[in-house]
Amino acid sequence: MNEKQVKEITSRDDDFAKWYTDICLKAELVDYSSVKGCLIIRPYGFAIWENIQKELDKRFKETGHQNVYMPLLISESLLNKEKEHVEGFAPEVAWITHGGSEELTERLCVRPTSETLFCEHYANIIKSYRDLPKLYNQWCSVVRWEKTTRPFLRSREFLWQEGHTVHATKEEAQEETLKMLNIYADFCEEILAIPVIKGEKTAKEKFAGAENTYTIEALMYNGVALQSGTSHYFGDNFAKAFQMTYLDRENKLRYVYQTSWGMSTRIIGAMIMTHSDDHGLVLPPNIAPVKVNIIPIGKNHPEVIEKSYEIAKELKLLNISCEVDDSEKSPGFRFAESEMRGIPLRIEIGPRDVATNTCILVRRDTLEKVAVSLNDVTEEVIKMLLDIQNSMYLRAKIRRDDMTKTVYTLEEMITLANQENGFIRASWCGSRECEDMIKEKVGVTSRCIPFDDHEPIGKCVCCGKEAKHLVYWGKQY
Amino acid sequence: MNEKQVKEITSRDDDFAKWYTDICLKAELVDYSSVKGCLIIRPYGFAIWENIQKELDKRFKETGHQNVYMPLLISESLLNKEKEHVEGFAPEVAWITHGGSEELTERLCVRPTSETLFCEHYANIIKSYRDLPKLYNQWCSVVRWEKTTRPFLRSREFLWQEGHTVHATKEEAQEETLKMLNIYADFCEEILAIPVIKGEKTAKEKFAGAENTYTIEALMYNGVALQSGTSHYFGDNFAKAFQMTYLDRENKLRYVYQTSWGMSTRIIGAMIMTHSDDHGLVLPPNIAPVKVNIIPIGKNHPEVIEKSYEIAKELKLLNISCEVDDSEKSPGFRFAESEMRGIPLRIEIGPRDVATNTCILVRRDTLEKVAVSLNDVTEEVIKMLLDIQNSMYLRAKIRRDDMTKTVYTLEEMITLANQENGFIRASWCGSRECEDMIKEKVGVTSRCIPFDDHEPIGKCVCCGKEAKHLVYWGKQY
Repeated sequence: MNEKQVKEITSRDDDFAKWYTDICLKAELVDYSSVKGCLIIRPYGFAIWENIQKELDKRFKETGHQNVYMPLLISESLLNKEKEHVEGFAPEVAWITHGGSEELTERLCVRPTSETLFCEHYANIIKSYRDLPKLYNQWCSVVRWEKTTRPFLRSREFLWQEGHTVHATKEEAQEETLKMLNIYADFCEEILAIPVIKGEKTAKEKFAGAENTYTIEALMYNGVALQSGTSHYFGDNFAKAFQMTYLDRENKLRYVYQTSWGMSTRIIGAMIMTHSDDHGLVLPPNIAPVKVNIIPIGKNHPEVIEKSYEIAKELKLLNISCEVDDSEKSPGFRFAESEMRGIPLRIEIGPRDVATNTCILVRRDTLEKVAVSLNDVTEEVIKMLLDIQNSMYLRAKIRRDDMTKTVYTLEEMITLANQENGFIRASWCGSRECEDMIKEKVGVTSRCIPFDDHEPIGKCVCCGKEAKHLVYWGKQY
Repeated sequence: MNEKQVKEITSRDDDFAKWYTDICLKAELVDYSSVKGCLIIRPYGFAIWENIQKELDKRFKETGHQNVYMPLLISESLLNKEKEHVEGFAPEVAWITHGGSEELTERLCVRPTSETLFCEHYANIIKSYRDLPKLYNQWCSVVRWEKTTRPFLRSREFLWQEGHTVHATKEEAQEETLKMLNIYADFCEEILAIPVIKGEKTAKEKFAGAENTYTIEALMYNGVALQSGTSHYFGDNFAKAFQMTYLDRENKLRYVYQTSWGMSTRIIGAMIMTHSDDHGLVLPPNIAPVKVNIIPIGKNHPEVIEKSYEIAKELKLLNISCEVDDSEKSPGFRFAESEMRGIPLRIEIGPRDVATNTCILVRRDTLEKVAVSLNDVTEEVIKMLLDIQNSMYLRAKIRRDDMTKTVYTLEEMITLANQENGFIRASWCGSRECEDMIKEKVGVTSRCIPFDDHEPIGKCVCCGKEAKHLVYWGKQY
């Protein structure tokens, strides 16, 4: 690797798709394998995923959820038990037909999601109201036979967590569905600095087998929407298909009510496409595996190296992950590498700095440089990391809001969609016909009916009849 | 569930296999699924696995290893690249032939282990000596098409970690192989209280494609051995098959040297079969998800409940995981349940105890009861947990040593093996013929050539010729 290689990525404004792939590869988040559509998550990419897991898992456990592990494989007959569900997933599953040299009597698929396995297990273990609720979650990988694939956004195998819960009452299950959606939203906003719109999916866009699907939708730098996490309320649909019943306090047999919710490595793609720039990755401090990178300049100055490690030690004592890059590469190369990896804050320190008791802090988000006294460096680092986290969120939110436009007619909608990407606010009558027509004519799909912005403004943008909801529409990943 | 159900497990001495399965199911560690040979790991079982992961992962990271994620699927041509390896694994892999409704042009198998994927990736990313060593680990599930399956011990899918490292020199790779074996051994002894024998596998028993396989072997309560973790030195076998080369400091192209090492959910089976008894699971305090269970007796005594939660609070402040079971079940039922779940220490407290400022501590390992003053309860708990951990290890070690016998002739070996299970110490000439003959005549296999006990004692037990090693033989899981 030379300096040029580090810097050579496609410009974000020239070719967003290529810029994105360049970052994934050059920041060493992923690599391709010879298995089509399956990616390797490299140490730096996996460290980000581990931090995501740690943050989410903590929130799940604090709200009473327990982790379990279900089989990777699902028999064809089990997958077939809930009609809508199998119709949604069967076209995209990978089928196992042979174990060793023997042909199997029944095909098995690699799980595309695990509703059926959880249902079967719950039907076995739940007898009475005393066994409820069950609040299970699983961290695993799933396989869906996608045609076109892109790092993190769409691959034949991806990592995720899937929560599956069962409850005695409808109300309790509905409450759980929204609780988990809020956990996802808070996590995205507080940790990944990604502003999200919380809302409900239309019937067309909901999960196969669900009664309601709730979503958090984020808007990427290029104005394309990305569904970042979903939470489903199943009612008793699966309960009836799988005979998941319990005896209530009056000894009556009742069906359980059910939810499921998931977030995947896709969210890493969302984070990249929200914050990164032409210098490479930009990581929010709250998720960065390395928050501060110290780069000593001037090989033959032991006082510089010494001071660098001194600062690192102080930061580590404050639990701020920190690396000293005193490798033999040129300062310029090391700066570029630190920027490519998206490390939130860089400290540059040379002999003259040590002599004048200062150092330079460089924020990754704005690339602003500021000289600070070595006496105040840890305080300044703490302040600046907080500021970076907040500014990244605010910048993304302002951009998202700027890219959210309102239209009242189909013509306006077509013109807008041809001009620019973004969220389009438009009222809708609730009919599948209009939803399909909008997709056909405008090339956008309904992203969600936002909780906080769902009152219709005027008539249906498509048919002109009474509108039922305001909907956010957009192109999507 | 009633009291009888909790207590109703097969006696360990009557039917060890059934006793083992009873514990796995009744302690709610696992459940069966409808997919043959694939198990569900329930919350309590998974909490144990999470603690195992936490302990091992910490040790891996402290020694410079990084986590990655490789694809679940391996193409047939990739699996075929290393001859010995494919011969070892091809007969037991699950083959995917269809994605959705389309037949694949090349079959893919679900990874039985990931050497080939790591090799392919390493060949891509390693260019020069500056890129070495690479010390990667992966936590995942693997699939091997086993005919007969048992909870944790043998299943078609299991969870594990697989470390894969590459090095510039033979010496460094060999050092790594042994370093990781020692990490496994220390983890087993210090955390799981399982004494292990460290040693090398014979050529017959080594991993498909390895130059040397090292193992830690544990002896279960019934005298059957269990291979508890392995570490392999590959030399440059795979490097040659996969063209994994690097430029050294003199700019010469060289092959890398490689290792792999793994530990799986099997180790949970080993822990159960080492420590548990007719009352259920017995967990070493260092791995138990709940270390202390407080059981208040006497519903209408608020002072008892209050005192219970007070003790729990104090223990939690000391980071000792603790649960109060103030459910409506009878005290006897709650005691039995606590014993079934293997919680290391139980605190019983009733109105008379509160009045006299005492409570009863019951050790799970020995079921001994001791009254202690409520003033000293946290100190006593700390002392006793330490003592339980140490005693469990020592009892297992004494039993293992008692079950390790030495023989000098094949006749002695046959007689001993017919009488009892255990490790058989016997010298061996090193020939495959004698190893096969011993298996055929005695029904035992070579477990390992122990590092600390490998000097031959007399001639080969089978052919009577010069002995090369002392070997530990035994029946195995």
